[in-house]
Amino acid sequence: MKNGNNSKLKIIPLGGLEQIGMNITAFEYEDSIVVVDCGLAFPEDDMLGVDLVIPDISYLKDNYSKIKGFVVTHGHEDHIGAFPYILREINVPIYTTKLTMALIEKKLEEGGMLKRIKRKVVKHGQSINLGDFRIEFIKTNHSIQDASALAIYSPAGTVVHTGDFKVDYTPVFGDAIDLQRLAEIGKKGVLAVMCDSTNAERPGFTMSERTVGRTFDNIFAEHTNTRIIIATFASNVDRVQQIINSAYKFGRKVCLEGRSMVNVIGTASELGYLSIPDNTLVDMDQLKNYPPEKTVLITTGSQGESMAALSRMAANIHKKITIMPGDTIIFSSNPIPGNEKAVSKVINELTGIGANVIFQDVHVSGHACQEEIKLIYSLLKPKYAIPVHGELRHLKAQANLAISLGIPKENVFILRSGDVLEVCSDSAKIIGKVHTGGILVDGLGVGDVGNIVLRDRQHLAEDGIMIVVMTLEHHSNHVLAGPDIVSRGFVYVRESEDLMDEAHQVVENALDICLDRNITDWSRIKNIIKDSLGDFVWKRTKRRPMILPIIMEA
Amino acid sequence: MKNGNNSKLKIIPLGGLEQIGMNITAFEYEDSIVVVDCGLAFPEDDMLGVDLVIPDISYLKDNYSKIKGFVVTHGHEDHIGAFPYILREINVPIYTTKLTMALIEKKLEEGGMLKRIKRKVVKHGQSINLGDFRIEFIKTNHSIQDASALAIYSPAGTVVHTGDFKVDYTPVFGDAIDLQRLAEIGKKGVLAVMCDSTNAERPGFTMSERTVGRTFDNIFAEHTNTRIIIATFASNVDRVQQIINSAYKFGRKVCLEGRSMVNVIGTASELGYLSIPDNTLVDMDQLKNYPPEKTVLITTGSQGESMAALSRMAANIHKKITIMPGDTIIFSSNPIPGNEKAVSKVINELTGIGANVIFQDVHVSGHACQEEIKLIYSLLKPKYAIPVHGELRHLKAQANLAISLGIPKENVFILRSGDVLEVCSDSAKIIGKVHTGGILVDGLGVGDVGNIVLRDRQHLAEDGIMIVVMTLEHHSNHVLAGPDIVSRGFVYVRESEDLMDEAHQVVENALDICLDRNITDWSRIKNIIKDSLGDFVWKRTKRRPMILPIIMEA
Repeated sequence: MKNGNNSKLKIIPLGGLEQIGMNITAFEYEDSIVVVDCGLAFPEDDMLGVDLVIPDISYLKDNYSKIKGFVVTHGHEDHIGAFPYILREINVPIYTTKLTMALIEKKLEEGGMLKRIKRKVVKHGQSINLGDFRIEFIKTNHSIQDASALAIYSPAGTVVHTGDFKVDYTPVFGDAIDLQRLAEIGKKGVLAVMCDSTNAERPGFTMSERTVGRTFDNIFAEHTNTRIIIATFASNVDRVQQIINSAYKFGRKVCLEGRSMVNVIGTASELGYLSIPDNTLVDMDQLKNYPPEKTVLITTGSQGESMAALSRMAANIHKKITIMPGDTIIFSSNPIPGNEKAVSKVINELTGIGANVIFQDVHVSGHACQEEIKLIYSLLKPKYAIPVHGELRHLKAQANLAISLGIPKENVFILRSGDVLEVCSDSAKIIGKVHTGGILVDGLGVGDVGNIVLRDRQHLAEDGIMIVVMTLEHHSNHVLAGPDIVSRGFVYVRESEDLMDEAHQVVENALDICLDRNITDWSRIKNIIKDSLGDFVWKRTKRRPMILPIIMEA
Repeated sequence: MKNGNNSKLKIIPLGGLEQIGMNITAFEYEDSIVVVDCGLAFPEDDMLGVDLVIPDISYLKDNYSKIKGFVVTHGHEDHIGAFPYILREINVPIYTTKLTMALIEKKLEEGGMLKRIKRKVVKHGQSINLGDFRIEFIKTNHSIQDASALAIYSPAGTVVHTGDFKVDYTPVFGDAIDLQRLAEIGKKGVLAVMCDSTNAERPGFTMSERTVGRTFDNIFAEHTNTRIIIATFASNVDRVQQIINSAYKFGRKVCLEGRSMVNVIGTASELGYLSIPDNTLVDMDQLKNYPPEKTVLITTGSQGESMAALSRMAANIHKKITIMPGDTIIFSSNPIPGNEKAVSKVINELTGIGANVIFQDVHVSGHACQEEIKLIYSLLKPKYAIPVHGELRHLKAQANLAISLGIPKENVFILRSGDVLEVCSDSAKIIGKVHTGGILVDGLGVGDVGNIVLRDRQHLAEDGIMIVVMTLEHHSNHVLAGPDIVSRGFVYVRESEDLMDEAHQVVENALDICLDRNITDWSRIKNIIKDSLGDFVWKRTKRRPMILPIIMEA
């Protein structure tokens, strides 16, 4: 590794959108770039019909030759989900821990790209050299196993990126977060900390995952006469482990339901991250051989996702499971912001069937609260604070915490996507901005849906569409057919015959005016029809359906 | 009033939908019907383009001659909002307290129907006789003033309907809830209680409204150098009173912003429900004459409503107010379920401008928590419990509370809309169901948008529309013009030229097949085009736009 000289480190978040989190950050030092994570985001409410959002990596493509690799903090979708898309455009090696790598490999395999991507599994405590960088993987705790903080050593100094984390002194599997190592690195001098802000608005300390296990034991003890169905996040292997532990203790068989649940738990189990007593797990088809009160079903759908297993059970359209009055159903999760109503809908449906739904205090967060964030800052004592992971409000909350710990306000940076922060031991400054953005994925289409299409969808969703078609004769503009009006999503046509008749008359009149005035330019004719029909409909209904005149030539 | 005999009381909730709350309940005894409240609901997420939902009152129209009046518990939209629509169909007198009546009158005035509706203002403690019923209005506390519980005396027994309430021993204005009177009525014997379930999942006791005033004082004391902007519910007059109190104490002028804020506070002030010290209130245009740190702006928009004043300020499109870095902005509200993301968006935007946003612990609920609900049951000691006001999960939570207080499970009734509960001192039973439903209001249209229109809007919103137009010659079915394909909300057409060319070819082929096979039935031709184009598009894009073939005849 070269000596510092006057060279500086650049930190560039490439995650695209303001509100939602695709985690992907470039670290650049002279001719070396290392990228932390490669996440996707789920669409905002106004991105109608969009399935997911991936980052625009123009900057990485423009600097392709410098990129030494991706280093990945953990296996959640907002950190690994964009790999199958991004690695089609750039071929860069991936470095991460075992379970995280296995989850990435599943994605690459589905995309048929596993063989051509170089991959290396890294253990906690281990370092890898990537160009001018050395990256050390440090054990942390999170709602998925094998999560890492990264110490990013560069000639300009050391940056610690916490990844998503919490401090769990009594984790269900493996070790607690390596606070000693963080302190050691802190003692040697840390230039900047990039710390998870998700819970930066919450006072206190996030409870240990293990506390949820005790809650399960209590619930199992209180409900020995009913079937138990538990919805949780498929990727929370420790949560599933604790359900299995309680089930085993209370003599119940366990069945997994939901594609991602079966996949992730299968992978984790193969790799030894989960220990399942013999004869505990049963297939869905075997379930009927056991009395309901001797079974536990662990399922997806804790967020009320309409296609997930629990939602289908609640709506009584699940092929194999029928919810019965008296069933005990546990949401071992909190609604992610935006999902509250969907979750409530499922709870109401289950309650309506007569199930006993438990949804309070059967979950702990995977993210650090304020006291944990303060602990990390106090161990690392960085010169600069760069809050990451969260909406602007959360980043701001962490910035306030950092300032309260004595970091000068001017040393705290809330970066927007594309900001280029140049940092060294003397100074830190945003020196420019690179192009970033969110690319919308809808079905197989990547990037073929954008603002205009979304605006049209929004318009169609609000008030529907009125299509005015007519056929004009070539040259003469004589009307050969139409004008006809067809509408969708506007009104019940049958009950609004008068309205539609009048609308037709309005279009006829508009057309007459055009012909009278010898207006032959089709775009003018279309505009006149659009305006007259639009005005009429607004006056009569106070609605603004999309009005689409189509003129054909014969 | 006649003696009980064997006649029974019928209680029929007419509120229509399962998930959302339009409060309107019929009480029927022989030839008398009294209706409690007349609320509207706001649309669910899947009711695209719908502005609001009103109850289907077929049952009331069918029994018009029996209806003696509406009695109204309080002035929130979900209890009074449907009056302007419903009173167009039935002309029935209204009985309620002064402020509630004033708010209803504002609505009727806008609809030009004030003169023809009989109204009578009732005071707390007063009773009115309506046919076989006597209705007593009892003082309660809520997030709007002048809220009432109703003791509904009938020959079959007494039902107490709490309305929306909390127990506030130290209200900002007027008296605390009349617990003595409730106890007195309870002592005489109560048949059934219909109690607010909104917070039935929350343990403990809702804090007094007055505690928010102390919080305001603290915030004002800590922020003497900045402008203060506070968003809250326009109808929470006590909240606005407390802001005015703090402003006066700290020498600030107060300005109101947002149409509903100005309206409601104006009405409340005229009626004496609000006391504003002289020279405290200033107009928006006068604001500039005072230094920012000597002003407070009270505004609508606490729920992130996109058109409300605060949201427009955050998006920097408000005509008169520009948010500045350093402004202190307070959300004196919690997000109503479903509004979380919208509120977060506004918080992020304000944070992005550099404002200091305070949104935690500056609000108390207007609804009773578990200990308050238990208190009401313990004072009234009803034979039957009929939880009201809330989603099914909340009603169920209250049912569990009632059972925990010793009410037999079979005496607890969770009613669905339209259920007819027949109740007397010996028995209670659901004996049937009447027709109810939600009528969708979109613009000026009442009921002209229903499931088919909504399904179309949903379809259009997901993947847009592809319109295939062609003109066929009369009789011969010879193609005179087209087929042309026009799409909206599907893909960027310019970047998908190949796809659109191929789609065109698919339609041509389908049409050729029809002509080859001598298929002349237009609906068959349309179906063949729809199917072939649909299949093609799904294979190529994994999307299902609405496909709309239009054939014209020339």
